[in-house]
Amino acid sequence: MARWEPNARDRLQQAALDLYAEHGFEETTVAEIAKRAGLTERTFFRYFADKPEVLFSGAGSLQEFLVTRVAQAPASAAPIDAVASALEATAAFFQERREFSAQRQAVIDANADLRERELIKLATLSSAIAEQLRRRGVSDRAASLTADAGIAVFKAAFGRWMRELAQQDFAKLIRESLEELRAVTASY
Amino acid sequence: MARWEPNARDRLQQAALDLYAEHGFEETTVAEIAKRAGLTERTFFRYFADKPEVLFSGAGSLQEFLVTRVAQAPASAAPIDAVASALEATAAFFQERREFSAQRQAVIDANADLRERELIKLATLSSAIAEQLRRRGVSDRAASLTADAGIAVFKAAFGRWMRELAQQDFAKLIRESLEELRAVTASY
Repeated sequence: MARWEPNARDRLQQAALDLYAEHGFEETTVAEIAKRAGLTERTFFRYFADKPEVLFSGAGSLQEFLVTRVAQAPASAAPIDAVASALEATAAFFQERREFSAQRQAVIDANADLRERELIKLATLSSAIAEQLRRRGVSDRAASLTADAGIAVFKAAFGRWMRELAQQDFAKLIRESLEELRAVTASY
Repeated sequence: MARWEPNARDRLQQAALDLYAEHGFEETTVAEIAKRAGLTERTFFRYFADKPEVLFSGAGSLQEFLVTRVAQAPASAAPIDAVASALEATAAFFQERREFSAQRQAVIDANADLRERELIKLATLSSAIAEQLRRRGVSDRAASLTADAGIAVFKAAFGRWMRELAQQDFAKLIRESLEELRAVTASY
């Protein structure tokens, strides 16, 4: 009989990240994660479909958040500004999860399959943002280019945030990365 | 005993593309591809490791071509111009393979695994270009952003080339897509 376990999800996630970091992602079993968290395998599978899911379960809500923010931007906002402010608004989300974000990124960087899954996540995010821009009346081509530019900015800002040990304001890094994108693509 | 077969590689590639288009990628077997090409399975495996390889065997030479072109750009060229002229220089390559490119893209668009592999190809291309920009003395961050911008431009130009039935000059579409990227990221 399943007992109610306080914070089971968080405990499983933390146990998984610790084990992935200690022994590697491939080498860690669900049984070990559950044991470390003081829970059962059955409880693990109530929260996560599989081992990678521990690292990617936030992707859906991140996408929903970004798409909603883009939809809510004032009609007068330029598409890139709608995307940039949506990305800036993720700062609170990431800053509350500094330690988790850093551990997660280290696990992903160390595993080719997880790096591929992260790429697919970002490409899916880009498509979803482009789709929302089209709904705002942005042309097909401009929507895709703006969304891809937004994801390039996000990657640059996130990489910098990780390298600078998550000490910086993430929203500021988004604005600076957009400025850098403009600078590197400028015509002389 | 293996006979020498003229154009075996091209015949296998064309047979595979035709079958992928007719019956779907998943449903087509290597035996069917070889039969359609009038060759043996053994000959197929002399040229391609597996079924997807027929679609991705050009990725390595495309990457080598782009990286070499970026390396050869004049020292005075801005990083984005080095990347844009490398991309423009792929025009001859793609324009000689209009029909192949269109068939290949249709097969990829219809299959989630192949779409993922294409994403990974483009991300690998971006990393290789960024690495070459770093060798030219471009800073880490600017190199990654410039390479990502270049790949966004390439995707936009290629998508447009496909939608416009490959009638346009691909190099011109690269230049126009870079202009569009500048326009959509502009600050007002």
